[in-house]
Amino acid sequence: MLIPGFRFAAAMAGIKKAGVWDLALMTADEPVAAAGVFTTNRVKAAPVLITRQRLRSGKAQAILVNAGNANACTGEQGLDAARETTGMAAELLRIPEGLVLPASTGVIGQPLPVAKIKAALPDLVANLSPGALPDVARAIMTTDTRPKTASFKGKIAGKEFTLAGMAKGAGMIHPDLATLLVFVFTDAAATPKVLKTLLRQALPVSFNRITVDGDTSTNDTILLMASGKAGNPAIAEAGPEMAALGEALNQVMGDLARQVVADGEGARHIFRVVVQGATSPKEALNAARTVALSPLVKTAMAGEDVNWGRIMAALGRSGARFDPERVEIAFGELAVVKDGLGLGPEAEAKAQQVIKSGIFNLNINLNAGNFSDYYDTCDYTEDYIRINASYRS
Amino acid sequence: MLIPGFRFAAAMAGIKKAGVWDLALMTADEPVAAAGVFTTNRVKAAPVLITRQRLRSGKAQAILVNAGNANACTGEQGLDAARETTGMAAELLRIPEGLVLPASTGVIGQPLPVAKIKAALPDLVANLSPGALPDVARAIMTTDTRPKTASFKGKIAGKEFTLAGMAKGAGMIHPDLATLLVFVFTDAAATPKVLKTLLRQALPVSFNRITVDGDTSTNDTILLMASGKAGNPAIAEAGPEMAALGEALNQVMGDLARQVVADGEGARHIFRVVVQGATSPKEALNAARTVALSPLVKTAMAGEDVNWGRIMAALGRSGARFDPERVEIAFGELAVVKDGLGLGPEAEAKAQQVIKSGIFNLNINLNAGNFSDYYDTCDYTEDYIRINASYRS
Repeated sequence: MLIPGFRFAAAMAGIKKAGVWDLALMTADEPVAAAGVFTTNRVKAAPVLITRQRLRSGKAQAILVNAGNANACTGEQGLDAARETTGMAAELLRIPEGLVLPASTGVIGQPLPVAKIKAALPDLVANLSPGALPDVARAIMTTDTRPKTASFKGKIAGKEFTLAGMAKGAGMIHPDLATLLVFVFTDAAATPKVLKTLLRQALPVSFNRITVDGDTSTNDTILLMASGKAGNPAIAEAGPEMAALGEALNQVMGDLARQVVADGEGARHIFRVVVQGATSPKEALNAARTVALSPLVKTAMAGEDVNWGRIMAALGRSGARFDPERVEIAFGELAVVKDGLGLGPEAEAKAQQVIKSGIFNLNINLNAGNFSDYYDTCDYTEDYIRINASYRS
Repeated sequence: MLIPGFRFAAAMAGIKKAGVWDLALMTADEPVAAAGVFTTNRVKAAPVLITRQRLRSGKAQAILVNAGNANACTGEQGLDAARETTGMAAELLRIPEGLVLPASTGVIGQPLPVAKIKAALPDLVANLSPGALPDVARAIMTTDTRPKTASFKGKIAGKEFTLAGMAKGAGMIHPDLATLLVFVFTDAAATPKVLKTLLRQALPVSFNRITVDGDTSTNDTILLMASGKAGNPAIAEAGPEMAALGEALNQVMGDLARQVVADGEGARHIFRVVVQGATSPKEALNAARTVALSPLVKTAMAGEDVNWGRIMAALGRSGARFDPERVEIAFGELAVVKDGLGLGPEAEAKAQQVIKSGIFNLNINLNAGNFSDYYDTCDYTEDYIRINASYRS
């Protein structure tokens, strides 16, 4: 997973427990076009505030990220901590501080351990290498059980290019314009404005269609950097080149988003709620999201119970307009509800096998209009509670 | 708990498992003033549709209720089942069918066992007695672990009166204008219009301020019947008499609502989220509700973890406008956040003792305005998952 123009390094700084990676650095060989999208939560972490401001230039050269501490709800001290650590990284890299973007994930409300980070920085800079992206994907994990990476190779204007990235996230996942931490890199050349547009276009087919628990993080950040080493003329406007890069981004971000849901805290069943036949795009989305978020639907899936009554109840409170007596519900292709009525124990027994497969589509047709949308989600198991009741202890 | 003018009976009809009460009848000695409020869920159970229609007259004489089967998503057959069972009850009681209100709670989407209910009806009618309200409160339970009743005695226009009622509910609790099943009776005299007005006034201090899991039921129903046996002139307009009856209703419904939260599925910690200093009434309510619904806040309370970062994150996505650096958070009277910053491990250790007490106020001041509101909720424990993953099996 090499992306020409970028280098990576991970380190054990002791922010989490000893002996695990928890700090990482990602650099471009020179200042490159960059864009980001951030959490809509009113409470924004210090690194989000600083990165958003530094990205106004459309240029960046490095990302300094830590896990184990969110540097959120830390006030002026938190902003200082992000500035001090990125300042030292800039000094070691011999680049302006404004080109280093901070990012953090972990516990909210505790001071960032600045001394530990500064102590680890010299080695981190010394160890930068083109092949270490997978190490960084591992270093940014918190309750994740596995690293999440994705990549795409294609051609733009006759030039081969690569687009690759990573994501972390398993809890506090209900992104609103972005998700916990996602870093994507490409060697294609494009202006910051094009990168920003493509990022926004990728959200409705990736991180804005997933939920684990309905809680939106204070640290959601997606960053995209383009080194231009592929050699194509910089993409500056709509056209086949921008479409090709957008397709690559949609694929990589969609893949990463599904990996985040599949690694949802405690998850054993992953499903996509597909709603068709809604009277408006907004109602299609609201209906899919309400079902995907319902604790009762999610616990039923944990119990492999074809409890379609809970799906009907969730649809009924979603705000979508429909006639209950026209609703159809199927697990995969196996129908359990037609004309709003259950098809009986035999149909449910077959549908249960679909749930048991562990990954499936929950297909709903409201038969009220022509609009459809979807939401990816996972079940609620006792492990979700266990993980989150003891997260800080 | 006697209310002059009303009689009650419970039976074992075999709708749930054998040997438990699951069917009940409540009757007035003659047609009396009655009012109801119902679920706003677009998917409404058959008994909700029928009771709402029959109550248009403002009069009722009986309520026939079963647990174990919600008679929801059952189509025309479900409406017929409700009509057939209430029809037989009316015949046995020698009253018009339109004065018998059906109510159901339990599994959605399965046919109501009409034959079992009809077989149990003759004994049920024969056993009606003034003292059996507590038996009925037990018969309407599903995942509830204990019956919930409340009563109030006072004076109206020099006449002693009683107001008493019951509620059931432990899951699918996020009432929107009503909750699962609540039945309240009084011997005070009042017009149906006054009863309806008082019911609506009681909601914002009772069932519209509680949540267990954010899921709104298809069967939410609150019914209020007034026999007039207290002998006061029927209350027909605003004044001290209406205020006195309203106060009684607020107390009884508030008490019942708190009992529902305290018996929330798997709940071990009960807390009231109080938000002060919001810039509008709506933002105060949204902030309190978002914190009360947050799975991460609820699991932290299960783990007795003073994880105020999750409270900040929930406030931040609630839509309420505030400056994060002015927020104060306290458990009971013990502050853990001031000016948006944590007060440290010692403050948290003290606050943890408040959580350990099992019932407490989570006090939040946004310091952004003059409006306040609250929401009652409970923690999310592994038992909530266990109960709901296996509900139908």
